[in-house]
Amino acid sequence: MSEILTSPTPETAPVEPDGRDEDDRAQRAQQLQQLRQALEDGDREALRAIFDELHPADVADLIELLNAEERKRLARLAGDALEPEVLAELEGAPLENLVEALPEGVVAEAVGELDTDDAVQLLEELDEEEQRRILARMARKRREELESSLAYPEDSAGRLMRRDLVAMPEFWTVGQAIDFLRSLDEDEGPEEFYDIFIVDPHFRPVGTVPLWRVLRTRRHRALREIMDPDPQLFRVDQDQEDVAYDFSKYHLISAGVVDASGRLVGRITVDDIVDVIGEEAEEDLLALAGVSEADINQPVGEITRTRFVWLLVNLGTAILASTVISLFDATIEQMVALAVLMPIVASMGGNAGTQTMTVAVRALATRELSALNAWRVVRKELMVSLLNGALLAVVVGIVTLLWFHDPMLSAVIAMAMVVNLVVAGLAGIFVPLVLDRLDIDPAVASSVFVTTVTDVVGFFAFLGLAALILL
Amino acid sequence: MSEILTSPTPETAPVEPDGRDEDDRAQRAQQLQQLRQALEDGDREALRAIFDELHPADVADLIELLNAEERKRLARLAGDALEPEVLAELEGAPLENLVEALPEGVVAEAVGELDTDDAVQLLEELDEEEQRRILARMARKRREELESSLAYPEDSAGRLMRRDLVAMPEFWTVGQAIDFLRSLDEDEGPEEFYDIFIVDPHFRPVGTVPLWRVLRTRRHRALREIMDPDPQLFRVDQDQEDVAYDFSKYHLISAGVVDASGRLVGRITVDDIVDVIGEEAEEDLLALAGVSEADINQPVGEITRTRFVWLLVNLGTAILASTVISLFDATIEQMVALAVLMPIVASMGGNAGTQTMTVAVRALATRELSALNAWRVVRKELMVSLLNGALLAVVVGIVTLLWFHDPMLSAVIAMAMVVNLVVAGLAGIFVPLVLDRLDIDPAVASSVFVTTVTDVVGFFAFLGLAALILL
Repeated sequence: MSEILTSPTPETAPVEPDGRDEDDRAQRAQQLQQLRQALEDGDREALRAIFDELHPADVADLIELLNAEERKRLARLAGDALEPEVLAELEGAPLENLVEALPEGVVAEAVGELDTDDAVQLLEELDEEEQRRILARMARKRREELESSLAYPEDSAGRLMRRDLVAMPEFWTVGQAIDFLRSLDEDEGPEEFYDIFIVDPHFRPVGTVPLWRVLRTRRHRALREIMDPDPQLFRVDQDQEDVAYDFSKYHLISAGVVDASGRLVGRITVDDIVDVIGEEAEEDLLALAGVSEADINQPVGEITRTRFVWLLVNLGTAILASTVISLFDATIEQMVALAVLMPIVASMGGNAGTQTMTVAVRALATRELSALNAWRVVRKELMVSLLNGALLAVVVGIVTLLWFHDPMLSAVIAMAMVVNLVVAGLAGIFVPLVLDRLDIDPAVASSVFVTTVTDVVGFFAFLGLAALILL
Repeated sequence: MSEILTSPTPETAPVEPDGRDEDDRAQRAQQLQQLRQALEDGDREALRAIFDELHPADVADLIELLNAEERKRLARLAGDALEPEVLAELEGAPLENLVEALPEGVVAEAVGELDTDDAVQLLEELDEEEQRRILARMARKRREELESSLAYPEDSAGRLMRRDLVAMPEFWTVGQAIDFLRSLDEDEGPEEFYDIFIVDPHFRPVGTVPLWRVLRTRRHRALREIMDPDPQLFRVDQDQEDVAYDFSKYHLISAGVVDASGRLVGRITVDDIVDVIGEEAEEDLLALAGVSEADINQPVGEITRTRFVWLLVNLGTAILASTVISLFDATIEQMVALAVLMPIVASMGGNAGTQTMTVAVRALATRELSALNAWRVVRKELMVSLLNGALLAVVVGIVTLLWFHDPMLSAVIAMAMVVNLVVAGLAGIFVPLVLDRLDIDPAVASSVFVTTVTDVVGFFAFLGLAALILL
């Protein structure tokens, strides 16, 4: 019997690549074409056939590839043939297009059928007026559940949680637990759960029993004996980033959510957290580049508006750098080689500063960098900046010498390079640390400050040294 | 009985912030101090007491905060008081420091006790010589398992998987399944599993039954009747990014891994994937900034070396931009205001290009952008660039007019701005698309190309137009 549990000795023979990516792409293209054909023909049966053989997430992917007009046609044609789960997979413009064109009753039914967490996510995407109209169509109990979830702050554990769960008192035995679960009708009670919550008479969690342990334990034993005490719990108002951090750090699969009085009101499962974790690093990436959304389905007007704000701020810093240059216009007039070389110093400072800043922003986000090790990291960055500044100074000094045959000019640019790289390294680490201490998201605000510093110092050091030494 | 399954109506009363972050920080600082004290005193019991009350992940965090000397002292003092799970949570320099100082037998024992996936991850961090010595100390069966896992390509499903799993034939009943699981000794057979794999006589998976469904089904029913057919499977040689993509897209908790002949050889659980997903967006972020590692525990020499390469490449592009400026040195000599203003055009192009490029790199990574919608996205980016170029041209034109009182100069910079922002937008979208098509990671290579384009075009457009129009 034991080989049932152990896998056979694996083969280590090399396996040829299966061209899976190419196949996937071709298949997707074909499905898209079939979908467009069905929409053009107004063929509801063909549409249903396409949907039936695909996972809701794949249907959602196809819908994202359609344009707004096609999405609306699809909504009108498909109606309730569109699974609720497909709507739950969508967001932004594609979802709005569908919801606008779908009969309100269909949307309300879909929201009613989804798990609470997915339903809340869908409702969040709608505007308040739509939310209200959809909620008004739901059964009272369901509506109250959803309304109370929506009453929690955005991005909180309360919004992420689902409400169906299995909770039992600690004196129940394994046998009682199983008998109870078996006694439920098939369409009653929770699905996709991984733990049984053990609660006290006030419905406060005192432990959890993972299902695999229930299955491996004899009937007569009490849940108390096999539970993991001190379960990891989240409060309804806790930020989803905290939740994601703990899930990731402690390798959680699911965890309970409690209200202010400590009562169990829901559970969060890791599949919802996976999205949050992916989003979190992505948000940092986007924020550092000055974009608020990676959503390629956003309308042009919205994209332009959000990106313009960032560009305008950066225009301010560019103009500031220009005023530094204008301080030295007489110097440049005497020696135009300075104008040729000056962007090098500023640009290298910008690159070095961005390197340090990016590492610092991530290390703060993952909580690897904190007040406890900040000084060690600062010292290290200073060393790295000095070393790289010195190395680059040599390279740029030689290039300048070969180009302009002026040893003093070469010395000036080398010195300016060291100065700017050290300043860049320090700005790259201090700016995020200070912003974090001030409770400002370092990802959003750091790069403007860092590039301002590296531009201003870069031009000032190079042109200033030139004015001092060369003229 | 039903209230056991449904949570009570939640309270929506506001909950005061609990100062959790501050508390955490203070607590961590205190633990660190206790740990340092214990190390200084050489107090093994105190050390053990600190470890005992913490989760292995928290112990690992503390160890990361120590310096190399302290880590070695800790290894010598703690010996086998250090839980294997703590080692599994560490990587890079902190792990190396410990392994160097720990007796080889202790490391071997730790590797022996860990789940296969964690053991492989730990071994991966060691150099080959160390790996060999540790493996030589293991029992034959365990050694062979680990060696065959290590034979799979790096970052493949084969390395991520654990080998203990529960597989049963489809004709077994729920009752048989439970009885079998109960019959296992407590220290025998798999833990932390969420599904039963249903396999054919050749050990090829034909379905999965989630444990919650086993618990909700009566004893006499066959597993065949309640299994999910067509289980999501991964091949041992599949890249972990593919695995992570599917886990995230299809909301998987666990999935089987099969060898080239389709036999089940292991399983991957979502908690290992959570790390991969977090890392993936982070890798893009770091690659775009020209850093290979966000590891703040890396030694100075390594950090300097990897960052220097990137800076050197960027020095090349900066020099290229300078040669463009040098083409116009006569023009600048006649009108030094050009030198003052020219960084503005180049820098705004760089910022706009980075925005577009960042979105494109992420959209490619998340597979939202592909050949199927590339043209739509390109058209959209072109529109956004034109709009933002026009808006910024107006702003910069007015600023220049107020500053230099020269309408023609103002017109030149405005025109150059539009040109460079459009080129930046196009470079920002085409460079990642082309690199992706050539199977080069767009995150690693895009920004050098994009900034080269925006620098060269920025200087060329502004100075060229100035030479044409103003002189």
